[in-house]
Amino acid sequence: MLLLGLDPGLRFTGWGLIEATGSRLRHVACGTVASPKGEDLATRLRCLHEGVAEVVERWQPQEAGVEETVVNRNAGSSLKLGHARGVVILAAARAGLAVREYPSMVVKRAVTGTGHATKEQVAMMVRFLLPGVAEATGQDATDALAVAICHAHYRATERRVTGAVRQGALP
Amino acid sequence: MLLLGLDPGLRFTGWGLIEATGSRLRHVACGTVASPKGEDLATRLRCLHEGVAEVVERWQPQEAGVEETVVNRNAGSSLKLGHARGVVILAAARAGLAVREYPSMVVKRAVTGTGHATKEQVAMMVRFLLPGVAEATGQDATDALAVAICHAHYRATERRVTGAVRQGALP
Repeated sequence: MLLLGLDPGLRFTGWGLIEATGSRLRHVACGTVASPKGEDLATRLRCLHEGVAEVVERWQPQEAGVEETVVNRNAGSSLKLGHARGVVILAAARAGLAVREYPSMVVKRAVTGTGHATKEQVAMMVRFLLPGVAEATGQDATDALAVAICHAHYRATERRVTGAVRQGALP
Repeated sequence: MLLLGLDPGLRFTGWGLIEATGSRLRHVACGTVASPKGEDLATRLRCLHEGVAEVVERWQPQEAGVEETVVNRNAGSSLKLGHARGVVILAAARAGLAVREYPSMVVKRAVTGTGHATKEQVAMMVRFLLPGVAEATGQDATDALAVAICHAHYRATERRVTGAVRQGALP
């Protein structure tokens, strides 16, 4: 099962692909889609959307997870981030992918064991869990891989619970 | 010149098309794209995007204007609105349309003469300026028509200024 993790941002959107076989995870690919800073909003959104659509088209993942960022800054920043998230989620949805959202703290907890981990700790654990990830990989890409790992954990748990219910072990 | 006005919202996105010939404006069509309330975010964004893309595909406008809402509520609401704006702007951009953004106050001023007009005053002036608009037209659609009118005014002014510069009347 090929899973796509997405960490949307208007300037840089990270993406990460992992293969989940049972509880084993393997790094497949990751990267960053950048939008040209000087361009108008419409052009930048188009760049982000097309970049993510290309990744989906090329790798054909089966499911996607996206980080649900809590924005503590002003409403204007949230609006901007919302634009990016909208077109990134849309790229996955238009390809028929199911997209699950995970709050930032849930992603951190799934990868490091604590919801208050620093970005560096998340990146370090991503490299530990997915040995193939290059040292030079940017933080947007490692964050996206963290979302993919989080999605893999949650769907595995769901399957176990659903399986247990089917076998009558749970009410 | 066929101009498209857009008033994005996650639940309802208004759209309005006007034809601008010199300073004369004519109502062509308007409506609302609704996203299904109970569905997940990805599905709703896809609905909005496809709805606006259909309008663009059918009518083939040459330019688009979109309202740049200032959100006074919390960051979460701004993030939601941002998603809708992102996929709506993208629908126009993917069709190769230039998309201009206008702050809400600028739209109100262009249509009513004051930036502090109520929504009812905006709707009333839209009906006055564009006689063909039906009484039953919803507020999202009249708001979108207001954006289209605003865009028509601004582009007409720009053309006059550019023309004057070309003729040496302005520095």
